[in-house]
Amino acid sequence: MADFLVDQLNKLGCTAEKRGIGKHTLAGQEVDLPPVVIGQIGSDPKKRTVLIYGHYDVQPALKEDGWIHDPFKLTIDPEGTGKMYGRGSTDDKGPVMGWLNVLEAHKALGLELPVNVKVIFEGMEETGSVGLPEFIEAEKDKFFTGIDCMCISDNYWLGTKIPCLTYGTRGVAYYEIHVSGPDRDLHSGVFGGMINEPMTDLIHLMSKLVTPQAEILVPGIKEMIAPVTEDERAKFEAIHFDMKDVHDSMGGDVTLSDDKVEVLMGRMRNPCLSLHGIEGAFYATGSKTVIPCSVKGKFSIRLVPNLWVKETTECVVKYVDAEFKKLGTKNKCEVRLTHGGEPWATDPNHYSYRAAQKATETVYGQTPDYTREGGSIPITADFANILGLNVLLLPVGRGDDGAHSTNEKLDMDNYINGTKLLGSYLYELANAQ
Amino acid sequence: MADFLVDQLNKLGCTAEKRGIGKHTLAGQEVDLPPVVIGQIGSDPKKRTVLIYGHYDVQPALKEDGWIHDPFKLTIDPEGTGKMYGRGSTDDKGPVMGWLNVLEAHKALGLELPVNVKVIFEGMEETGSVGLPEFIEAEKDKFFTGIDCMCISDNYWLGTKIPCLTYGTRGVAYYEIHVSGPDRDLHSGVFGGMINEPMTDLIHLMSKLVTPQAEILVPGIKEMIAPVTEDERAKFEAIHFDMKDVHDSMGGDVTLSDDKVEVLMGRMRNPCLSLHGIEGAFYATGSKTVIPCSVKGKFSIRLVPNLWVKETTECVVKYVDAEFKKLGTKNKCEVRLTHGGEPWATDPNHYSYRAAQKATETVYGQTPDYTREGGSIPITADFANILGLNVLLLPVGRGDDGAHSTNEKLDMDNYINGTKLLGSYLYELANAQ
Repeated sequence: MADFLVDQLNKLGCTAEKRGIGKHTLAGQEVDLPPVVIGQIGSDPKKRTVLIYGHYDVQPALKEDGWIHDPFKLTIDPEGTGKMYGRGSTDDKGPVMGWLNVLEAHKALGLELPVNVKVIFEGMEETGSVGLPEFIEAEKDKFFTGIDCMCISDNYWLGTKIPCLTYGTRGVAYYEIHVSGPDRDLHSGVFGGMINEPMTDLIHLMSKLVTPQAEILVPGIKEMIAPVTEDERAKFEAIHFDMKDVHDSMGGDVTLSDDKVEVLMGRMRNPCLSLHGIEGAFYATGSKTVIPCSVKGKFSIRLVPNLWVKETTECVVKYVDAEFKKLGTKNKCEVRLTHGGEPWATDPNHYSYRAAQKATETVYGQTPDYTREGGSIPITADFANILGLNVLLLPVGRGDDGAHSTNEKLDMDNYINGTKLLGSYLYELANAQ
Repeated sequence: MADFLVDQLNKLGCTAEKRGIGKHTLAGQEVDLPPVVIGQIGSDPKKRTVLIYGHYDVQPALKEDGWIHDPFKLTIDPEGTGKMYGRGSTDDKGPVMGWLNVLEAHKALGLELPVNVKVIFEGMEETGSVGLPEFIEAEKDKFFTGIDCMCISDNYWLGTKIPCLTYGTRGVAYYEIHVSGPDRDLHSGVFGGMINEPMTDLIHLMSKLVTPQAEILVPGIKEMIAPVTEDERAKFEAIHFDMKDVHDSMGGDVTLSDDKVEVLMGRMRNPCLSLHGIEGAFYATGSKTVIPCSVKGKFSIRLVPNLWVKETTECVVKYVDAEFKKLGTKNKCEVRLTHGGEPWATDPNHYSYRAAQKATETVYGQTPDYTREGGSIPITADFANILGLNVLLLPVGRGDDGAHSTNEKLDMDNYINGTKLLGSYLYELANAQ
């Protein structure tokens, strides 16, 4: 994929290359991190320069998870409803292709871009952008010089009809609780009733993290959340928002509340804790009567200002350790942060946002909502902080696209209008005050 | 494997054949159950007739679970310690091969067997012997006529040195708790904090089944256990038992108690509840930030008299349903028994047990312990009840063999002496009073 991007960019007049960003450990082996692709088109000192970011990696997907089509083959419009199915269609290969379409249109029409463009596409976004902050730091005064603002297209409309501009994202802190006891898996008939079982300990610990009503039980978390101002609440009340869109996007009504502002704040303004799964235990269809000897419970907390990764991790480690001691078992327990990204929020009155609003009005005939994103693009905060840039999040896909889910899709309408939106944004940006 | 067994048995003078035992549903498709292999050698009305049982199916195994060698290739004595590694080496292909060795020795030496032998080898033992009870019932007055007693070699010594005869097994009831909510997996950033998450509900339910100290929390279970008599307790106290063997067999000390009788009763005399894993949630190495839409928690209860499958299931379903209602979520929950086998115990003063004791003394120079088995061989109770037979459990392998575990093994000593034991048993059985 990195080679494909370099090749395409170079064909479209963008001087592009792959750059190694170090190594990491995968299943006990040290391997190269997926490279970043960087490129530049135009260097006119009279023009503004915008930095564009996307990612070419995707979430894991297995056909047997419930995909109707092969997740790794783009299936276009199989039911005549204009949907394009495939892992990465909306997150984030679709938007990356949107940018390439803009370059291709200019090349085909022999037009010069209205602004200078620098691009960076990474391959580790879904695993916490490992290596990228160091690359940004190292290239701060080299590749990343002379940039006026930044645009990231890697999030979604709130619903299915109203476009939006996004001025904040939640961060994420991903944890593993590792409980181990015997040195091998054991027959539950032979050993059940004789030993402290690691799974029992882990399930008890995981049950103490969050209530079924989604209240986080880790002490210290609530106290760190920045208080909600009246002004902020008013902004949430102004958002075009339809509970039906939310229910459609999850395929049922399992929302914690039916109050619009509560639901919006649950998604954008408050932290949350999700239990993702267990490594080392039985997971297949059928029955297996084994006591696993070593299990890793995985969960993540979505962060909001001022819930930073370091302080959150201190609370989690202290709490899990204390709760484990209360269990009084002979097993061992260790909890660790596997990756983290800080939350981010910016002021949406920068000229880049005004340019994006005008572009949206031109393409969609609609003033966009100003939203914050529930999902995490941890690198946003790094770009903003290290390079001192205003960052605009300009989504292409809809709220029901199913990013990270089975049957992820991008609507053809959104792909085509999204391409127009990205292109128009560059023209508005050239002149925005 | 069934074809191999039929072929071998026929070569060794045993009239054998495969027999279909119906169909079952696997991953949504109706497929044939693995066939049983039945055979007969000798029909002398002056001789006793013994029914021999084994199974040719095995537990699942993946190299990446921690196997040193390929689990599906027998690796003989790689360290010079006389161990033979492989899935099924001790459970139960090794003992099945032991019986074939006995037949082969008689064939090679031109000797007639001292008793008539009927054999049945099944292929569904690890999945609850689906279809076999119906087969026994249907063949009760056909293949299964004229049998005096039965011998099953599908369990283990308590430790690593003292052989044993086993006169009871725990039963098993295997359950799935299915919690479902949205109709697709969801991005935890986009939906976390807005919805009732099925995993959170499931983890809470699983945490309410058993304490870290292995106490079963399902009401009604404790009350059904047959009370322990003084005489019974004395039997447990008499068993040769070494805590070191137990610790060696699990690779560490995670026993709930250090008291010999408590540990033995925990294994043989009391029920237990093990949490095996979760289907539908993330299980691999690494991170996945998904809220799974549908998860199945798997657990089993080992049963002892008078904790029967039906009554136990009634307690489990009532309790899980009630606990789920308390969670107050919008998700759906269903708990069901996936398979069950009744506990079994018999009187160890039958002539078949006396024959086995003599054979053990001849081969090992050691009086065997009389034990009950923590593991389940659900079919034992069915053979005993439907055919009205005394059943002897005559183990070949040791307590540290790791049945159902990674690096399952059978010691060469046990394989060779076990073959002698099975052969000697037939001779003692011919004359036992």
